[in-house]
Amino acid sequence: MLNPFSTYANAATADTYPFALGVASYTFRRSSLEQTIAYVQRLGIKKLVLKDMHMPLNDSASDIQMIAKKVRDAGIDLYGAGVIYVKSEQEVNNTFEYAKNAGLKIIIGVPNHELLPLVEKKVKEYNIKFAIHNHGPGDDLYTSPSNVYEKVKNLDSRIGLCMDIGHVVRIKEDPSVWAIKFKDRLFDVHLKDVNKAEADGSSIEIGRGAIDIPGFLKTVIDIDYKGTLSLEYEKDADDPLPGAAESVGYVRGVLKML
Amino acid sequence: MLNPFSTYANAATADTYPFALGVASYTFRRSSLEQTIAYVQRLGIKKLVLKDMHMPLNDSASDIQMIAKKVRDAGIDLYGAGVIYVKSEQEVNNTFEYAKNAGLKIIIGVPNHELLPLVEKKVKEYNIKFAIHNHGPGDDLYTSPSNVYEKVKNLDSRIGLCMDIGHVVRIKEDPSVWAIKFKDRLFDVHLKDVNKAEADGSSIEIGRGAIDIPGFLKTVIDIDYKGTLSLEYEKDADDPLPGAAESVGYVRGVLKML
Repeated sequence: MLNPFSTYANAATADTYPFALGVASYTFRRSSLEQTIAYVQRLGIKKLVLKDMHMPLNDSASDIQMIAKKVRDAGIDLYGAGVIYVKSEQEVNNTFEYAKNAGLKIIIGVPNHELLPLVEKKVKEYNIKFAIHNHGPGDDLYTSPSNVYEKVKNLDSRIGLCMDIGHVVRIKEDPSVWAIKFKDRLFDVHLKDVNKAEADGSSIEIGRGAIDIPGFLKTVIDIDYKGTLSLEYEKDADDPLPGAAESVGYVRGVLKML
Repeated sequence: MLNPFSTYANAATADTYPFALGVASYTFRRSSLEQTIAYVQRLGIKKLVLKDMHMPLNDSASDIQMIAKKVRDAGIDLYGAGVIYVKSEQEVNNTFEYAKNAGLKIIIGVPNHELLPLVEKKVKEYNIKFAIHNHGPGDDLYTSPSNVYEKVKNLDSRIGLCMDIGHVVRIKEDPSVWAIKFKDRLFDVHLKDVNKAEADGSSIEIGRGAIDIPGFLKTVIDIDYKGTLSLEYEKDADDPLPGAAESVGYVRGVLKML
């Protein structure tokens, strides 16, 4: 099967899956927005989630619009922002205004539990999806996708999950199980690998670690996932491009064979 | 099937193929030897072929020994050198002394046709293999593996081919066909991709181009190839590591699925 993820030189690599590969800009957290855009272009990636160091939460509406325009003028779909920690009513309000100003389809966030009714109200008001990010051991709010599931299953269907597969594996759960269970509300994925399936497992180039990447990619195909798999490569903070590139190459190689 | 190519953090990635992945140091032709070693380590690669900018052909025996020791002390198997253009009797003599001083298993070279009897004599004298490199359009000596085949088929069995699959595809031939035909004398491979299967096709990240990489990897498994597939990534001469890493990742991803 052909590689779906980028615009290549030869026509044999047109999209064949309903999902896309993206990048979470936290990968390039020590680089400027301009440099991040250049890195994403070099990876042949067309989808981007910005973290706040690249699009500050308290910037003016016009500054946010300018940042979003810069990304889109580079041929990259700025589809989301996050992870945004939302701890007060004012932060909920601000987050949705920020998302509207940037023209986002989705907010990836971690809202305090008591703020979920307000998040639901804002999702309806703005018609912007909200994907709650699981964060593994050490996150009391949403350790596992199950914590997200229990909180959102009775809320508006535009509230769902951004599954971070690294954090899922670090609590010894299976990302494929959660992808299937959550398929109607799986809005986004942080794609990564970890060196071991333990609480203290840390980021590593995709393919070198403990996560069954082929199995997970088969699952997202099976469930007809239509969102984005965004690479979040946390290793090599001062020079992440080579490891990010190796990770993207690995995913493309596996997909070529599926 | 598991990834054969590197020493990873988890035990699930032990070698499962008789061949290995390497790097041809021409990839890092604008970097120092020390930087090249660091790049190869970062890629998780254990096999290296040095080009003359990293191990000069006219260095003294002791300098060559020091360079070879530096590579091996970094945990990398310096198995070959090249591509070396051999245009005179003195260059044949020098090349074999150089290879002996560096402790090489194989010389990758382009000898003038009239020097082949002397190359054969030296192969017997030094017991070092000599792999002739095909160079595609514009190389009058060995355009295709067929030109190598015709010249070496009646020579000592330690004279064979280093097949550059990019140059094969640029003359519209199939690397898998040549791997099968030449399997007894296929000593080394330059692994790469090209943006189009035309004479003017140029280097591109593996997986983005015109070469059927999965098909070729299946072939080297089928013929029980025991040599090295050395990445020669010629794009991005001033900053090749990201593209080299993407290429290595892609190959590992495909192999994971074979």
